[in-house]
Order: sequence, then C-alpha cells, then structure tokens
Amino acid sequence: MPTLSEVARHAGVTPATVSNVLRHRGRVGETTRQRVLDAVETLGYRPHLAARALAEGRAPTLALMVSSIANPFYPEFALAVERAARTSGHFVIICNTNEDPLTGRAYLDQIAGTLSEGVLVTNANLDFADLHTTEARGTPVVLCMWERPSEPPGLPCVAVDFRLAGELAGTHLLELGHRRMGAIVGSKASGIHATRYEGFVDALRAAGVAKNRVRHAVDTIRGGYLAARALLEADPQLTAIFATNDLPALGAMHAAADLGLCVPDDLSVVGITDIELARESRPALTTVAVPTVEAAGLAVDLLRELIESSYGQAGRGTKHVPMRISSAPRLVVRASTAVPRARRKAAANAGRTENLE
Amino acid sequence: MPTLSEVARHAGVTPATVSNVLRHRGRVGETTRQRVLDAVETLGYRPHLAARALAEGRAPTLALMVSSIANPFYPEFALAVERAARTSGHFVIICNTNEDPLTGRAYLDQIAGTLSEGVLVTNANLDFADLHTTEARGTPVVLCMWERPSEPPGLPCVAVDFRLAGELAGTHLLELGHRRMGAIVGSKASGIHATRYEGFVDALRAAGVAKNRVRHAVDTIRGGYLAARALLEADPQLTAIFATNDLPALGAMHAAADLGLCVPDDLSVVGITDIELARESRPALTTVAVPTVEAAGLAVDLLRELIESSYGQAGRGTKHVPMRISSAPRLVVRASTAVPRARRKAAANAGRTENLE
Repeated sequence: MPTLSEVARHAGVTPATVSNVLRHRGRVGETTRQRVLDAVETLGYRPHLAARALAEGRAPTLALMVSSIANPFYPEFALAVERAARTSGHFVIICNTNEDPLTGRAYLDQIAGTLSEGVLVTNANLDFADLHTTEARGTPVVLCMWERPSEPPGLPCVAVDFRLAGELAGTHLLELGHRRMGAIVGSKASGIHATRYEGFVDALRAAGVAKNRVRHAVDTIRGGYLAARALLEADPQLTAIFATNDLPALGAMHAAADLGLCVPDDLSVVGITDIELARESRPALTTVAVPTVEAAGLAVDLLRELIESSYGQAGRGTKHVPMRISSAPRLVVRASTAVPRARRKAAANAGRTENLE
Repeated sequence: MPTLSEVARHAGVTPATVSNVLRHRGRVGETTRQRVLDAVETLGYRPHLAARALAEGRAPTLALMVSSIANPFYPEFALAVERAARTSGHFVIICNTNEDPLTGRAYLDQIAGTLSEGVLVTNANLDFADLHTTEARGTPVVLCMWERPSEPPGLPCVAVDFRLAGELAGTHLLELGHRRMGAIVGSKASGIHATRYEGFVDALRAAGVAKNRVRHAVDTIRGGYLAARALLEADPQLTAIFATNDLPALGAMHAAADLGLCVPDDLSVVGITDIELARESRPALTTVAVPTVEAAGLAVDLLRELIESSYGQAGRGTKHVPMRISSAPRLVVRASTAVPRARRKAAANAGRTENLE
C-alpha cells in the first residue's frame, strides 16, 4: 500500500494537505482537493482504517483484554496471541483493564466492533453482561483461559483443566512424602483460583490427608511472600507449600530464604502456570505447566471462525456456544521440591518467630 | 452514553437489528431502519468510535508502542502511561512491535490518526522515517525514554539521562572499593544501551581505573546469565558486575549462584532501571532507578499538548521540536553490592571452570 507521502508527491502537495483533504479539515482549494483525491484513487491508497472499517463493517485487529499487564503471565500470553493472530494478518491491540470491570466495559464500548472485529478475554473479571452486550452488537468474544471445562460459561471459550493442575501439584508433593502442607490461594476477589485449590484438596483427600493450612493472597510475588510467612508462623512444621500461581510461589521461596529455610530441603514449593520467571528463578520452580501457547492458538482460531461465520449476528438461544479444551496441564519438576527432611532444630525453636520482621 | 441494547429496546427491535442498520448489513425493512435511526438520534447514541473519529478527525485513544512486552519494564511503563492518560479520559492501547520495525510500521499505518490521536513510542527501534510519516499525517508522536538529552532526536521526546545512570553505578562500585569489574551491555542491536556503558566507563576513567571487561548480551535474564558466566570464566578475579539493565543484572546474580559465589560477598551486582523484580529478588538488587512514572506522565502531558495544538499539522522545519527532561536517575542501594572481600579460594582455583556447565 502506498504511503500518504507518496500520494502527496504524486499530487504535488504536502502530506499535511493530503491529510487535510482526507479529514475535511483546513482550507484546501477545489482543484487541489480533486488532485489529491485523484492521486488517492490512482495509487490505491487506503486513507483510513476507520473508513475501511465503516465501509466493510470490520477492522483488521483483534483486541486482547488482559486483567493485569503487571502480571508477567499476561505479556507472555499476549505474545502467543500475537504470533497466532499474525498468521492471518491480524494485529493485536492490548487493553489492560487492571481488574476493573468498568474499565473493561469502557474498552469494549470504544473498541469492540469498530477498532477490532473480535475480542479475546483472558480473565473472568469482566462483567459477563458487558461481554454479552458486545456479542449482541455483532462482535464475537472468546474467553481464553476458562478454568472449569465442566461448567461452560455461556460464551465461546477455550477451557484449561485447572482443577487437574491443582491435583497434579498435590499428588507430586504427596508422592515425595509430604503430609503437612500449606496452600496459598490467589485472586480471592474473582475466585478463579478456587478450582485449582479444589484439585489440590481432592488429591490430599484421596491420600487420606485430611487437612492443610490455607491462606488467600494477592496474586503477586509480594502477596505470596506475606502469605507464606503467615503460614510458616502459624505452623513452623510445614514441609511444603502449594501456591495456585507461580508468582505467589516465587514469593513463598523468598519468604523461606528470609526465614533461613532452604528450598527444597527445609521447604518444598510448587506453583501453577510455568511463566518464564519459574524457569529463571533460583532454585528453579517446580510447577504445573498450563498450555499457554496452545490455548492462545485455539482462542485465536476460534475467534477467527466466529468472525467469519458472523456468529455475533445470530440471536441468543438459537446458537451453539462453542468450547475448545486445551491439552492437559503437566507437572514440571525442577529444583524447588524434594523429599522432606526433618526440619532443622532452629525451625522448631519457639524463639524463631522473634526473628521475623 | 446509552448502550446499543437501550437503542434496541427503544426501537422495539433486537440489538442485532440495530447493529445491522448501523453497519448497512443484513436485510432490514425501511420502517424498521427508520425506527432504529430515530432511536439513535433520540437517545444520543454514538454508534461507532470509527464514525466519530472520521467526523472529528480524532479518536479518544492513545497508542503506546512497546518494543518487547515480554520485558517487564514495558508493562510497568504501560501502567504508568495508563494512569496518566486516564486523567484526561484517554484510553491506551498497547501495540507490541517485538523489536521489529516493520511490525511497528504496520501498527502506525493502521492505528495512528484513525484509532489513536497520538502515539507514544518507548524505544528507538522503530524506523524514524515511519515516525516522521506518522507525524506528517497529522498524528503527533512522542518518544518516551530518549536516552541522550544532549542529542535531541528530531522528534518530540522525554529524555532521561541514562549516561548519568551508568556513571552512578560505576561510582557506587568504585566507592565500595571495587577495581576489577565486568560490564554487561544489553541491546546491542539498537545500541541504545551504549550511553549507559559510556557513563560507567567515564566514572572508572575518572578514578584511574583504565579498563574493565565487557560483554554484550540479549537484554534478558538469560542473556545476563550467559554474559556473566563468560565474564567470570574469562576473569575469576572480578569482584563486581555492572549491567546496563536490571534483567541481565538478575541473570548475573543467578550465574553467581550457580558458580557457588555469594552475592554480594564474592560478587557485587548493580543494574539500571529499578523494575519491580529488582525489589523482589533475593538478594534484592542494587540499581540506578530511572524516573519511570514521572517520564510516563511527562510523555502523556506532552502528547496531549501536541494533539491540542495540532502540532502534527505544521510543516516540518517551521516548528520547534520540544524535549522534556525528567529528573535525574538515582542510586538505590540494596543487598547485591558490598565492599569486595578476597574471593574464596575455590573461586581462584584453576579447576573451578570444570564445574561450569
């Protein structure tokens, strides 16, 4: 496609004049105006995505709504989405809602169906009514990482079996011989991590381990740090901590370090997701990897299909709501989990808590 | 603003019908069509951002071009930009170029001036010709983190004195007593880290330290890890490593751990930027903090001023190119730097390299 500068050169005017003509702004004589429009036609210049979007009723971008760009999972997922989208020439624009449903609605109102012909949603903290409204306007919506394949959300989605992820983490710790475990459950507000914790508890129950300590935490390294300290203060005999996400698991490792505990000898730590930091940390984090790249590809494929089939145009109730299920999460054993050994005397020492900050 | 659903209710039709009328799609009877258009007018519904953007020649979003969403600095910067933009009701859409100038051009072609009324660019690896083209089309562009205040780039920018950041890091290590130092310089391709390294070398030179070992690296944890291992293999007597960014500095700390070196006792490590991971790592990273939030605010303010003054419409050469300079970077001393002590015998042992992977 020719550039605006080439149009300007062809018409013998400045780029600013071309811009003014195309935007119906500024004072441009009729002869000049016509020369510009002739150049646009001759060169096949497409002046505005917006004009094209209006003419065709579609725009060539996909919007990716993420709930927290500060959480490194989302940039990694965004990269995978971009790679998948690029195969059909789509560009991805990333909209960060900061876990605020109202911000999410504002993005949907402004972007869906005008700037973007489809919307990918990575998390469940948008208001479902807003997503249905977007769909009703004719813009397909796909939920990218639905956590409960057994309970379809009523919107097209790619589901990942996160209950299984929790179960695999629990089974791993049990097989190593851990019986006294703590759990850190992230994202209390949205509740989406509850499924992961259920899987963990199921594994323990099946092995006859009746209970574990649990703390809810903000889904960050800092959140996991504070929760792990609280768990270890409440029960210094814990030999393992399961976190429903890698970030709080990394925080738990930092808490262990600050308490003078060696990971994994004094304390095993396991997370879920397998973000890059899990591989890059020291010790490297044992985690249950979810198929991020695959889920991103499935989500983009599904969204493209819905766009092509004008899925959003069909009335509600008359259409089948598709759900694609990713391959299963799998355990990745690294250096943060091991067979429990008797905790050092210092750890059992009643005076230990005096060392806490 | 009323929703499409409210328009539908008012007109007594389905939302899909409203959408069809506004998009000139589907079969809709003339009476129904008129009823929908009446409802749109009565309720003051603004059907499309695109239509509005065309009518007004502007859209209410700012585009933020980032070179690598996988680098955690950019999500942090994006958050700061969003907060600043929100004060004037602007939404931010994030476009990730993956350090590819052609991808950057594609985003600019598609988004600038249609979807977004202004563009923020966080890195210098876009083709400047493309940025000038965008500006010539009437869409202001602001470079957010220009690294050389003494050399204005010819585009509106916010400059941060990154040479000073390197100098502060070097001075800190010198004051601790380090004389035998290595440097890891990131982003060789774009060369933007060269300025930081110059500042480091200037500090050493001023103190009579004639030379240091240097390695270029990919600007990631892994890149820093590999570069640090190479530096320490080439000279096991190094007592400190300076990295031009926090990510490779974190990698250098991991390399030290894998080599059995204690940070900071055996090896001091200092970075630049102060991303969240610098605070969250163990040991916490000493770094030179750049004023990220301030620079984001300055960039958004400048962009808004340029949009309001129709800066992009002015011909080139006739306009003053503004540059705002942020406050100075400042040293943040944490736990990764200390006075050098004689390296442990094992480190000097000629057999040590046999333990390397």
